[in-house]
Amino acid sequence: MAPKIKKKQKKAKKIIVKSKKAYSTAKKTVTKKAKKQNKVKISAKMAGKVTDVKKVKESKPKGLKLVYLFGGKKAEGNGEMKDLLGGKGAGLAEMTNIGIPVPPGFTITTETCNLFYQNRMTPPKELMPQVKKGLAYIEKETGKKFGDVSNPLLLSVRSGSKFSMPGMMDTVLNLGLNDKTLIGLINKTDNERFAYDSYRRFIQMFGNVVLGIDKSEFESILENRKKKQKIKLDTELAVGDLKYIIKKFKAKIKEKTGDEFPQDVNIQLEMARDAVFRSWNNPRAITYRRLNDIPGDLGTAVNIQAMVFGNMGENSATGVGFTRDPSTGQKKFYGEYLTNAQGEDVVAGIRTPKHISSLAKEMPNIYKQLKAITVKLEEHYRDVQDFEFTIQENKLYMLQTRTGKRTTAAAVRIAVDMVKEKLISKKEALLRVKPESLDQLLHPQINPTAVANVIARGLAASPGAASGIAVFSADDAVRFAKAGKKVILVRQETNPDDIHGMNVAEGILTSRGGMTSHAAVVARGMGKCCVAGVENIKVYEVDRKFIAGKHVISEGDIVTLNGSTGEVMLGEVETTEPKLSGGFGTFMSWADEVRKLKVRANADTKKDASLARSFGAEGIGLCRTEHMFFAPDRVPIVQKMILADNELERTEALEQLLPLQKNNFKEIFDAMQGLPVTIRTIDPPLHEFLPDKQEIIKEIEQMRAAGAWEDDIRAKEKILTRIEELEEFNPMMGHRGCRLGITYPEITEMQARAIFSAACETAKNPRKKAPIPEIMIPLVGTVEELKHQKNIIIHVADEVMSHYKTKLKYHIGTMIEIPRGAITADEIAREAEFFSFGTNDLTQMTFGYSRDDAEKFIKVYLDKGILKKDPFISIDTDGVGQLMKIAVDKGRSIRKDIKIGICGEHGGDPDSITFCHQLDIDYVSCSPYRIPVARLAAAHAALGKTEYTQK
Amino acid sequence: MAPKIKKKQKKAKKIIVKSKKAYSTAKKTVTKKAKKQNKVKISAKMAGKVTDVKKVKESKPKGLKLVYLFGGKKAEGNGEMKDLLGGKGAGLAEMTNIGIPVPPGFTITTETCNLFYQNRMTPPKELMPQVKKGLAYIEKETGKKFGDVSNPLLLSVRSGSKFSMPGMMDTVLNLGLNDKTLIGLINKTDNERFAYDSYRRFIQMFGNVVLGIDKSEFESILENRKKKQKIKLDTELAVGDLKYIIKKFKAKIKEKTGDEFPQDVNIQLEMARDAVFRSWNNPRAITYRRLNDIPGDLGTAVNIQAMVFGNMGENSATGVGFTRDPSTGQKKFYGEYLTNAQGEDVVAGIRTPKHISSLAKEMPNIYKQLKAITVKLEEHYRDVQDFEFTIQENKLYMLQTRTGKRTTAAAVRIAVDMVKEKLISKKEALLRVKPESLDQLLHPQINPTAVANVIARGLAASPGAASGIAVFSADDAVRFAKAGKKVILVRQETNPDDIHGMNVAEGILTSRGGMTSHAAVVARGMGKCCVAGVENIKVYEVDRKFIAGKHVISEGDIVTLNGSTGEVMLGEVETTEPKLSGGFGTFMSWADEVRKLKVRANADTKKDASLARSFGAEGIGLCRTEHMFFAPDRVPIVQKMILADNELERTEALEQLLPLQKNNFKEIFDAMQGLPVTIRTIDPPLHEFLPDKQEIIKEIEQMRAAGAWEDDIRAKEKILTRIEELEEFNPMMGHRGCRLGITYPEITEMQARAIFSAACETAKNPRKKAPIPEIMIPLVGTVEELKHQKNIIIHVADEVMSHYKTKLKYHIGTMIEIPRGAITADEIAREAEFFSFGTNDLTQMTFGYSRDDAEKFIKVYLDKGILKKDPFISIDTDGVGQLMKIAVDKGRSIRKDIKIGICGEHGGDPDSITFCHQLDIDYVSCSPYRIPVARLAAAHAALGKTEYTQK
Repeated sequence: MAPKIKKKQKKAKKIIVKSKKAYSTAKKTVTKKAKKQNKVKISAKMAGKVTDVKKVKESKPKGLKLVYLFGGKKAEGNGEMKDLLGGKGAGLAEMTNIGIPVPPGFTITTETCNLFYQNRMTPPKELMPQVKKGLAYIEKETGKKFGDVSNPLLLSVRSGSKFSMPGMMDTVLNLGLNDKTLIGLINKTDNERFAYDSYRRFIQMFGNVVLGIDKSEFESILENRKKKQKIKLDTELAVGDLKYIIKKFKAKIKEKTGDEFPQDVNIQLEMARDAVFRSWNNPRAITYRRLNDIPGDLGTAVNIQAMVFGNMGENSATGVGFTRDPSTGQKKFYGEYLTNAQGEDVVAGIRTPKHISSLAKEMPNIYKQLKAITVKLEEHYRDVQDFEFTIQENKLYMLQTRTGKRTTAAAVRIAVDMVKEKLISKKEALLRVKPESLDQLLHPQINPTAVANVIARGLAASPGAASGIAVFSADDAVRFAKAGKKVILVRQETNPDDIHGMNVAEGILTSRGGMTSHAAVVARGMGKCCVAGVENIKVYEVDRKFIAGKHVISEGDIVTLNGSTGEVMLGEVETTEPKLSGGFGTFMSWADEVRKLKVRANADTKKDASLARSFGAEGIGLCRTEHMFFAPDRVPIVQKMILADNELERTEALEQLLPLQKNNFKEIFDAMQGLPVTIRTIDPPLHEFLPDKQEIIKEIEQMRAAGAWEDDIRAKEKILTRIEELEEFNPMMGHRGCRLGITYPEITEMQARAIFSAACETAKNPRKKAPIPEIMIPLVGTVEELKHQKNIIIHVADEVMSHYKTKLKYHIGTMIEIPRGAITADEIAREAEFFSFGTNDLTQMTFGYSRDDAEKFIKVYLDKGILKKDPFISIDTDGVGQLMKIAVDKGRSIRKDIKIGICGEHGGDPDSITFCHQLDIDYVSCSPYRIPVARLAAAHAALGKTEYTQK
Repeated sequence: MAPKIKKKQKKAKKIIVKSKKAYSTAKKTVTKKAKKQNKVKISAKMAGKVTDVKKVKESKPKGLKLVYLFGGKKAEGNGEMKDLLGGKGAGLAEMTNIGIPVPPGFTITTETCNLFYQNRMTPPKELMPQVKKGLAYIEKETGKKFGDVSNPLLLSVRSGSKFSMPGMMDTVLNLGLNDKTLIGLINKTDNERFAYDSYRRFIQMFGNVVLGIDKSEFESILENRKKKQKIKLDTELAVGDLKYIIKKFKAKIKEKTGDEFPQDVNIQLEMARDAVFRSWNNPRAITYRRLNDIPGDLGTAVNIQAMVFGNMGENSATGVGFTRDPSTGQKKFYGEYLTNAQGEDVVAGIRTPKHISSLAKEMPNIYKQLKAITVKLEEHYRDVQDFEFTIQENKLYMLQTRTGKRTTAAAVRIAVDMVKEKLISKKEALLRVKPESLDQLLHPQINPTAVANVIARGLAASPGAASGIAVFSADDAVRFAKAGKKVILVRQETNPDDIHGMNVAEGILTSRGGMTSHAAVVARGMGKCCVAGVENIKVYEVDRKFIAGKHVISEGDIVTLNGSTGEVMLGEVETTEPKLSGGFGTFMSWADEVRKLKVRANADTKKDASLARSFGAEGIGLCRTEHMFFAPDRVPIVQKMILADNELERTEALEQLLPLQKNNFKEIFDAMQGLPVTIRTIDPPLHEFLPDKQEIIKEIEQMRAAGAWEDDIRAKEKILTRIEELEEFNPMMGHRGCRLGITYPEITEMQARAIFSAACETAKNPRKKAPIPEIMIPLVGTVEELKHQKNIIIHVADEVMSHYKTKLKYHIGTMIEIPRGAITADEIAREAEFFSFGTNDLTQMTFGYSRDDAEKFIKVYLDKGILKKDPFISIDTDGVGQLMKIAVDKGRSIRKDIKIGICGEHGGDPDSITFCHQLDIDYVSCSPYRIPVARLAAAHAALGKTEYTQK
């Protein structure tokens, strides 16, 4: 950037800061009053306040400055003023300031939008004079006149908020046309069809956007005419047709609104402006903001700009481009254009756009100019630019420039390249990539260009994409998978009984449950695509079908899931495999250089452990042993244990499980090569290991009917009785976690024995590194619980180590997942060598939300703004986070070096990781596929990033 | 007390304190070592340490003082030394010191018992020499000799711990008899039968207590002989029979133990002593301690005392008595005695004891002496004494004195009387009555003298007693009650659907659920007797019967419940109605004078509100509005509301409920006469208002089979669908509380309208006091929830008040029952004018215990000592209490004068009330019947009482 410009900018910035402060004071007064009186008038007093502001300003607006000019030599705003001018307005001002040609125009500020809303949908009266001045400026710069019959100025009226909300708000083009200026346009351009088509487009757009008439009303007029004339494309319409259509459009407007289409261009402008303001709060904009964590009180700016036309002949053109390939990140000039066309034609896909390189031949000067401008823009913004341009009769105009959206692969490559190019620092490079987005790199994706028939939408529960035949039970999934089929497991919801089916499925689809439902959590753990909680499908598991609208999908029908968007598609849709570029390793190593948090994995199997290592895990933070109970060959033994009438029978069953679990642990220790492995003792309630009650009842009935042996029936009945005994009203708060280990100490004993036997055998193998088992007791609410379990474990450890004649380092610690555990963390720290926050349960108990049930009202809460974020996705820092802080402080007050981690689902969520960094804990643990995300998020946190919303 | 004695006591006390300290140091060393080496030996070093102790002592034991003498002129201990000497030993010492004749003896300390356990069930070797000295002392005082053939000393060996554990531990009498001393006894007493019978009793008692041979072994020998001789009573056995029996007893001992019955009196003594030590940890003692919150590490003392005999002729007697009537509290000398008898004969009921007044005629001197002694004892202890005495050949011995157990009615009367007598202060009077016990006064009780056939035992869930016919559904209860029958509602468990049945029942019996189950909570609220969680009965609701052991109780059979003990009895058992003595009012007024906590009631109906007022409630702390939905005439409307497809239909149903709820509120406001009434908006999940799923399924099947109209079936199916939609995995953490009011604002609106309409109508009535409604939002976890509901309520309040053209004082506040609510109480206090702790839910969430399910493992936790108390009964001060403290501090940091109360079940629990007092909150709220309990507990707390365990 030229030093002169820099200096100017600096000065401008200072002024802006000052004026902003003054403005903010003024606004507060207004807002307060507004609340009191329920209406706002920019009063004399207010105007007086603003006078003070005026004194410190160089540009001298009368009263409150609501309009900022751009285009020509110098803009009133600049690129830093996104808050006030929106992204588009700030970009246009910045381009003006660095000497890039943009069609002249002005921006009405976002604050004006807010005043509009406060003032019962009326803009402040100071606005019109400023708009008039703006128009005069455009007229001066273009030499045209707004509403003039001989040389009419046409305008575009566009929204533009601080954060890009593509397509969500409204735009009106060709404004300023009426029956009279139309003639002027014809005369001036000597292109009757162009003028009539522009008028047709304008009426249509105005009718829809400003007057709120349904698009289809206009479309059907257009279609009828085309049908009558037996033509297919809009471009084939003759002038006569357009005249006819315009007449019909006007009549439709009269019919629908009772008023004529406004011929007064100033009224057109005012109406369009207010429509843009209103569009800030249209339903899809509200939804988009909610989904993207954009606050609702920012407001939109309105950009009013001279129209330029790329369709004024072969010396005109319009196009879009990127300074680098947004898909791969490759450094090459990338773009498309159409000669003699308007922007919407490029998008509409009627004509195939040409590659930007053709422009070098067709208009070499313009090409050179465009290249130079875009290089300058990239250097100026030090980031890839996504730009729009129009060439009107050999003159190049830049219509927009903004940070180019890119795939994650491209983002990583660009970040690494730009560091090499010395454009940005490593720190900036790291901050350029959203941690969350790395997830994309690790899963297959739906090919963005593929055609898909989306039949339903649910929660994007686990990213990636998968196609396969629909199956409706875990057993069927296994059966078909064995036969070589790719399967999608479709269930109302999943439970631990379905693990074997989920394991072989390509993807999982459920009609119930939220982002933290069993299906979602397990799928993410497995790195498998999952669409959960698709409420508008109905799954009939018994009948092996599901219904989505008018589609009935039966067993064997192929469906495709997009776990990154929540879409369910009919048939097979093309997917792309992820590729990790060479830059990825470099990039991640930079992240590792700066982060303070260690990153561990939640992994229960050898496969997961290896995968986690390959993604950079520095240990296992959560190995759930109950998953070792769910393998089909073990469930019968586990059931035997549960059905045991006494400790002896129970111990016998446990002894059968012992060697199996020991082997699992050995495999995991192997994979982790001496890194710490945190193993949690059994956690879920025992009834999860028993078959479904209704099924057993049915089985007994069938056995009775078939005259089965009384003994066999009695065995089934025993299971039924036990199921009924184990039934709980609120299993989440029932007999599980360490409560099991305390009532059945022999379970803890067996697990400890399996762990230490495995560890000793590994340690004694000279080719292997000695493992460091960390045994973690779940659901501890009182130190006495921990003591009880710890005694058992120490006892077994001593016994096993003396049996193997070896000594091992090991640690015993606890989950902090019960509020009482957090509150009494000082007491607990006397016994615990480490804490691991189980933020799933901690969130459940702290809020009193059952994650299986709460999605229903959480959705309403998010809609009504009662919750800002789903606390099961990001740690609720004000509530749950405070309990965590209490636990950290109390824990360290007793045991200074206590190791503290987190192993809930939040361990892979960037905002939660930021919070963990601030808490100054030791590590986060997450599912293997989230590890790169966590590494980067931890780096961001170390670099001072505080949150991810709104970026 | 004579000043001389006082002085001496003071000195003795000083010495004791010193020696205790030294002892404690010594003991610590021992304990540490014991832990390390797993065995304790009183080592030379230890002995050395104790030598230091010796220096400061006046009484000069060798080494560690393990034995304290009493009887004769002066005891080594005194009444304050219950910790070391146990209650009995301290009492005997104290009696000695104040000049009351007791048979000489000595106490082996409780510490010895602990050393015994630490030292692998062996007493410290220092003990025997001290015991020898003790024996020598008794021999000197009695002129008899232990083991002497001519003039044998017989001993009683009795347990005695700090807290009375009647009948739980062991006693051996007549110790010192053998084949030789028997002859001496015969010669000395000239009573052969007495001597042989004493020997027989001794062998029997020794065989059972010391050698562990089952009682029945001896009983059957005795019975066989009696059968053979065709006699009925033991007293009819001749000397020959006794000789025969003694032979048989000895043979039995040889058979069972392989050893002869020990003839060495010193061995007898050692064995008996160890047996008493061991009995500290027998199962029933352990259970008793758990039930009575007595710590397990106190140990028992052993009292070894010269036997005295009341059965040595007509100039001998034995008896028991109270200084006042323990049943009514009346001030009259109360007691019974038998001449020529032993203590056990009084208890055995073979001969009818005479009233103590006869003694005045039979032995006027002794009577005068006894009267004087007992008056002295009462004055000395300043409390009613329960004493035992024996007259041996015209000489009176006091065997025991202790604080007399009394009924609550007696306790209140005695306390009030003793204040009038200036024996004690009002403060002491208040502290003499356990708050919990007041409950007894307010419910009918089982007549203690009635004969009852107890068929099962469960939890004493709600006090009182009731008889009635067993019925197995709420509807049947109503039907039979209408027919004039008294009914006991028997269910596996109850739910809100059963309210109408519970309402008409005399008592409630459930086979599932704990102290805070629905049945228990509601019954206590209704002041109805309830026995809950009777695990060893099986209830067949459909078959209308329950099975308890070998008894099958069918509909119509009469049963009786004792809700104060948990007993279930067959048939009708006589009950007594409670009477409130005049003293009660005086007593409670003293409590009110000192307490700082206000006491409110949980009351949902006019009846409860009136009752609460009569018990002294100062307002309503919790009016549950959902109970107003459960009336049979309203359930259909409520269901209509739930089944509504849209807001309009829902609002229509709500409008039907409005006038009904309004009337309820008016009645309650009337009853409370201007006192504050806290009304909670709807709390339970909607599915509680819908019928049982299985029933609906059955109904639909039946309708199908019967060919019902398709429309009717479809209506039922709609209900079924809604039930399924509303099903939740963990309803406790689901869609309930303010979550309902937020998703269906029209419910809150209706409720607010009912409240304010009722309040305005009451306020406008010139004969009535204006009510102060306090509207309470349940289950608030974030301030946004409260804001949302508050807005609705304020809006409705304004509207209603302007309609009625009146102004009312009202407050809006919130329950604090979600951990997050407590943690963010500062934020919430910005909106809430009051907090009310919902400690039931707060305990559930803080511990992660579902109170419906947790009883199972809580029982195990209590047994294993992991929990000290059931947190659903007494507030867990370390966990839940800390959250409450956080909430109080944070709440007051924002709103200094915020009113804070508690309305959970804990509001009526004395220990929890003590904690509330310490938290310095404003009031507790509890069910009407608990109000006197709460008033007294609050007074105790204000008087500095900190807990109720172990008293």
